[in-house]
Amino acid sequence: MKNTVDIQNLNDNRNVRIDKVGVKGLKYPIIVEDRANATQHTVADLDIFVELPHHHRGTHMSRFIEVLNAYHQRNLVAEIEHFVLETKDRLDADSAFVNISFPYFIEKQAPVSGIKSLMSYDCFFLASHKDEFEMQIGVKVPITTVCPCSKEISAYGAHNQRSIVTVVVKYSGYVWLEELIDIVEAVASCEVYSLLKRADEKFVTEKGYDNPKFVEDIVRDVVVELRKDKRIIEYRVESENYESIHNHSAYASVVGKRDS
Amino acid sequence: MKNTVDIQNLNDNRNVRIDKVGVKGLKYPIIVEDRANATQHTVADLDIFVELPHHHRGTHMSRFIEVLNAYHQRNLVAEIEHFVLETKDRLDADSAFVNISFPYFIEKQAPVSGIKSLMSYDCFFLASHKDEFEMQIGVKVPITTVCPCSKEISAYGAHNQRSIVTVVVKYSGYVWLEELIDIVEAVASCEVYSLLKRADEKFVTEKGYDNPKFVEDIVRDVVVELRKDKRIIEYRVESENYESIHNHSAYASVVGKRDS
Amino acid sequence: MKNTVDIQNLNDNRNVRIDKVGVKGLKYPIIVEDRANATQHTVADLDIFVELPHHHRGTHMSRFIEVLNAYHQRNLVAEIEHFVLETKDRLDADSAFVNISFPYFIEKQAPVSGIKSLMSYDCFFLASHKDEFEMQIGVKVPITTVCPCSKEISAYGAHNQRSIVTVVVKYSGYVWLEELIDIVEAVASCEVYSLLKRADEKFVTEKGYDNPKFVEDIVRDVVVELRKDKRIIEYRVESENYESIHNHSAYASVVGKRDS
Amino acid sequence: MKNTVDIQNLNDNRNVRIDKVGVKGLKYPIIVEDRANATQHTVADLDIFVELPHHHRGTHMSRFIEVLNAYHQRNLVAEIEHFVLETKDRLDADSAFVNISFPYFIEKQAPVSGIKSLMSYDCFFLASHKDEFEMQIGVKVPITTVCPCSKEISAYGAHNQRSIVTVVVKYSGYVWLEELIDIVEAVASCEVYSLLKRADEKFVTEKGYDNPKFVEDIVRDVVVELRKDKRIIEYRVESENYESIHNHSAYASVVGKRDS
Repeated sequence: MKNTVDIQNLNDNRNVRIDKVGVKGLKYPIIVEDRANATQHTVADLDIFVELPHHHRGTHMSRFIEVLNAYHQRNLVAEIEHFVLETKDRLDADSAFVNISFPYFIEKQAPVSGIKSLMSYDCFFLASHKDEFEMQIGVKVPITTVCPCSKEISAYGAHNQRSIVTVVVKYSGYVWLEELIDIVEAVASCEVYSLLKRADEKFVTEKGYDNPKFVEDIVRDVVVELRKDKRIIEYRVESENYESIHNHSAYASVVGKRDS
Repeated sequence: MKNTVDIQNLNDNRNVRIDKVGVKGLKYPIIVEDRANATQHTVADLDIFVELPHHHRGTHMSRFIEVLNAYHQRNLVAEIEHFVLETKDRLDADSAFVNISFPYFIEKQAPVSGIKSLMSYDCFFLASHKDEFEMQIGVKVPITTVCPCSKEISAYGAHNQRSIVTVVVKYSGYVWLEELIDIVEAVASCEVYSLLKRADEKFVTEKGYDNPKFVEDIVRDVVVELRKDKRIIEYRVESENYESIHNHSAYASVVGKRDS
Repeated sequence: MKNTVDIQNLNDNRNVRIDKVGVKGLKYPIIVEDRANATQHTVADLDIFVELPHHHRGTHMSRFIEVLNAYHQRNLVAEIEHFVLETKDRLDADSAFVNISFPYFIEKQAPVSGIKSLMSYDCFFLASHKDEFEMQIGVKVPITTVCPCSKEISAYGAHNQRSIVTVVVKYSGYVWLEELIDIVEAVASCEVYSLLKRADEKFVTEKGYDNPKFVEDIVRDVVVELRKDKRIIEYRVESENYESIHNHSAYASVVGKRDS
Repeated sequence: MKNTVDIQNLNDNRNVRIDKVGVKGLKYPIIVEDRANATQHTVADLDIFVELPHHHRGTHMSRFIEVLNAYHQRNLVAEIEHFVLETKDRLDADSAFVNISFPYFIEKQAPVSGIKSLMSYDCFFLASHKDEFEMQIGVKVPITTVCPCSKEISAYGAHNQRSIVTVVVKYSGYVWLEELIDIVEAVASCEVYSLLKRADEKFVTEKGYDNPKFVEDIVRDVVVELRKDKRIIEYRVESENYESIHNHSAYASVVGKRDS
């Protein structure tokens, strides 16, 4: 190999600090903590970034993957703080950021028959380390929403649909993904299952009809619950209802902080 | 420019005819025929391919775009046969294929208030010319489906959801996209609108509840209508119901021909 | 119609103000301003939201569509301020927000042959009105990036790939989408075209090789240009390089303000 | 529960056999066979369908999930024939179909440094049972393609890009996903890695430049290899090149059979 320059190590005089630079959209098998079963295997999409000072020409992309590979077959989520710190150190950076999103599976029991099945939830972790470690966790929870207006004005029936509720929180202590999922499912018109027998389908239909909620109600009811929880420092809650009577969605979102 | 070889024109001895080669995923503004308004402007995703004989090394990708550019600001759909033939001739090929998919807009009237709004439908044309010109047209129609089982077993209410019904037909004569859309909307539990006032929402809720349909019913009812139409030579009908009580879809599909 | 309650108008005592509520993912044909041709027809994805005070139970979703429908066949972008204000007024809200994203087409000339073709760029407007009207405009520009490290260390060749550069700006006065696109294309290893003849392909290959850029270089060079422009108040610049030698992307982003 | 009708069991007189009906888009954790490590954990998207005779009103959607759940934590791929047969039996159907698609991970060694990293490949199984069990397996392999024309006409450099090559085969005996992946990577201008050090990057750059291939070459070279393999009965090969000098793809596809 000829005597080449390590261009990434050159000085840069454009005076532009780069907030985030690194690798994006990397698929990787991971192990995550699971409240019911200790751990579970899943597959993540990963973004891993560092801050780049204005005087450095480039970062070293291969080092991101080297750090990650050392965590193969380990519980990346349990070790997330070490992973972010190690990325920051290995890249010699002032800050590091890791976004991990993955499908997460929970065994649920149908409400009447008690029959069990697995439900998938898209979940994510947003971890960073500048002066200190910070982490946000998020869930996307599918639910049924029944329209209160449709129920009120109609002689019978009510339009309903699948909605996806996203909750992202910054917290102190420890919060399980399952806790956020429970909050959302508890405020839904009805929760969603992979497997329902006839008696279950009757139950969820009637429960939904008895419990109609607007998109506004969903996000408010989630916020009310989050505000009760002392561990929650910041939250973002949104719901997208894939309306059964339209070809577009109804949507609502709320962003808040503990003391606001 | 140095004296270079036109590599695409070289001979090839691997003895592999290429069924389709060309450009894919090209966005392009197009004008399409519109039953109500003569024409409408929209934006298409285009794939344009030809067959490549086994003895030719490569096709000439730039010629696909040259042919297309000559149709800019013209009614590409009205001239689709010329466009396919011109592609075939310009590329000196035995066959040419064009796939055009685009959102198509129709003004609908709400069922009670009569208030008007635009609905979008994803539509597509699959045109080809080997020995003769052939064309299939397709529509993806959002509808409401109300579950007959849920209605039957529940004391009140019934789960319902947005479904997307795809119909693709090969035909003789002329068939409007609007005709296929009308067939699907007529067999739905209820059709979908962009704008509904209170009296309309009551109407669609009750109509849906009065008219429950399984995913199987939807595709069968569409097929029954297509079979009545002498112009329809071949059809493919599918429905995907984005179940409001599950995190997955219910799905059904039927493929058929006139004489089968 | 029986004597029903207008549930959306009920009071709410959960004490949760909703930051954004409305319709999302609505497809709509629009007319936008075009520097070269006065206007062009395209198709947008629209999100239209308002703020909902804590004491109101629900917004009136149908009114969003009613406001929008009044702008059918008008230049929605030229009238965007009126559209946002009218949404705010019609929904009786303290704030309104409109996100409009759409493919935008520009006729480009190949660098040597001068042959013309249309390029598509995904563009967007983020408009809002709280106490005053605010607007951000954004572009996603495909470019070629050639890797400086690969060129430096290799005896010949250099890996290169398509990259998508996103630029979003808040500004005073008027800024054309074309101006942002021009800035990005000028700092690329080479710009991208829909149609290139042989002499053009030689030109873009050699230009790219002469002009290698890291993902960090791209975002910095765009920022340097934006900082020179007195109209730009805030900016966000990111580049995603779909690496030809990896199955993931290289990524960089910078956020900044005029006085920072 | 009131005395309700099992509507799905009703007779149907529309005379329309449904080719495929069932569940679609179900996410599920699966275990698959792995040539290097016996098994690996991943996450699948599943479609599970049966044929429905013309005289049956509806299928029983919950049974699909019941059959699937019995395979939780088992090697679904090793037992795929049993799974399809059990679906067919449990649904009392003449045919059953299962589509399983999932990211699959292989540890690769960088070509010079020998450093190891994981690469992800999107893979899929298409299994069915009518009179007998049939299975197709497929892989989507990311590779680098360097343009021969660009190299030939340019004084230096050559445009290159990431391409995705899809290979689907029907076979006798047993074929590893890894075998199909190996075929594609062997005919690429250069294969793709997650982790490359400087010496590796020099190697892949120069190897790609030494080995330019059109999209037509890629599909032909794969077909030539498949034809040599007595196990391969039918194949479909396609390549989509995400051109670095355009905003669209170059594409080629070939479909073939053993005796053709």
